[in-house]
Amino acid sequence: MGKVICVGLGPGDPDLMSVRSDRLVRGATHVAYFRKKGYEGQARRIVEGMIRPDAAEYPMDYPVTTEIHFSDPEYNRLMAAFYESWAEKLAILAGTETVLVLCEGDPFFYGSFMHLYTRLRERVAVEVVPGITGMSGCWTATGEPITWGDDVLTVLTATMSEADLATRARQTDALVVMKIGRNLDKVRRALAAAGRLQDAWLVERGTMPDQKVHRLTEAPDRVPYFSIAVVHGQGRRP
Amino acid sequence: MGKVICVGLGPGDPDLMSVRSDRLVRGATHVAYFRKKGYEGQARRIVEGMIRPDAAEYPMDYPVTTEIHFSDPEYNRLMAAFYESWAEKLAILAGTETVLVLCEGDPFFYGSFMHLYTRLRERVAVEVVPGITGMSGCWTATGEPITWGDDVLTVLTATMSEADLATRARQTDALVVMKIGRNLDKVRRALAAAGRLQDAWLVERGTMPDQKVHRLTEAPDRVPYFSIAVVHGQGRRP
Repeated sequence: MGKVICVGLGPGDPDLMSVRSDRLVRGATHVAYFRKKGYEGQARRIVEGMIRPDAAEYPMDYPVTTEIHFSDPEYNRLMAAFYESWAEKLAILAGTETVLVLCEGDPFFYGSFMHLYTRLRERVAVEVVPGITGMSGCWTATGEPITWGDDVLTVLTATMSEADLATRARQTDALVVMKIGRNLDKVRRALAAAGRLQDAWLVERGTMPDQKVHRLTEAPDRVPYFSIAVVHGQGRRP
Repeated sequence: MGKVICVGLGPGDPDLMSVRSDRLVRGATHVAYFRKKGYEGQARRIVEGMIRPDAAEYPMDYPVTTEIHFSDPEYNRLMAAFYESWAEKLAILAGTETVLVLCEGDPFFYGSFMHLYTRLRERVAVEVVPGITGMSGCWTATGEPITWGDDVLTVLTATMSEADLATRARQTDALVVMKIGRNLDKVRRALAAAGRLQDAWLVERGTMPDQKVHRLTEAPDRVPYFSIAVVHGQGRRP
């Protein structure tokens, strides 16, 4: 009997992978990972040069990413069929083999693997190895601590409405906004309305070789999907 | 010229340390860490067996932990003097040596090192290596993903008032409550008032050999300070 192990790869720098994930990646004979069709994929890129040459690779190409909005029933139908189909394939493979699924960041924190996990765990043994989140990599890159003393941290996604973003930004000490991409202008306006724009930072590709850290007011107009905005808490400090 | 490097050690299992932190810990000749006076200290315990026998160790004993409330000016005075004194010692040492400071979890996420960091960075070169947070270790231990789709995650400390805890618990999808310890009853009452108690989990010593995972309703009445309560988000999933 084999099993499925999902390894959190951390924020991008392979040196920030856990010792356990590093060992599992280097020893794996069956390696699956999500990617946008036609792209190498972020998870696969992180482990470049670490995978055994004789390992079997299973790229799992998303049938859709942003071409259809996630509120469209067709998006849901395509993605559900995709996850179901890969859960079936991996479950069969895991009948005899140990299959590693690569996941950037921490798998249980907004990770795509969760959709396989809920479908796999009734059928086969599944393990999850946590990882350093992308947001940890990003706030470390800013050179300022994110939460002090009793600070409240709110983490949200930029897909939220502008009004809700502004309300949440007003009500928290520290703030992380994930999945910025095309929502950059909306995030800027919401933070301005909440009086938090001047204290906000934008990190592109945190911990990766082409990492960029900007004041949000000075960020370029086009940023990658995996950009994160950060407003640091200012809590109690002796 | 030396420098100070603070290494995040992750949630407790040494195998969850990053490859970089692992390498730095094993190679270090000067190692400092916080601890409660008379105790080994959680950070030092994580690296047991990894430090070179000839390494110089600098235990930094907190002058006070919970004996004086943090709202008392005396607490502030004692802690400020403590951080100032160690910043001075480490800055002098870092004039010629590389000094490693150990920090459980992720240093910039509620870590004590931040108080040294702000005092050190004007005087010497300082680097920070992020780590897997204690909360990632804890939600992974529950076996359920923490955030789905566009879930909002709120992280707060159990030191907050019961009314504020309840309000925050009502307003979020996913919730993490840090630093439970003596505040367990208050957290239970607040989550009950918010209608979230039945969905809450308590994790003691996540990822450590004596890890315990309970439904919050079934948790013992006394739990360690480093216990974390978790309410998972229920967001969109195809």
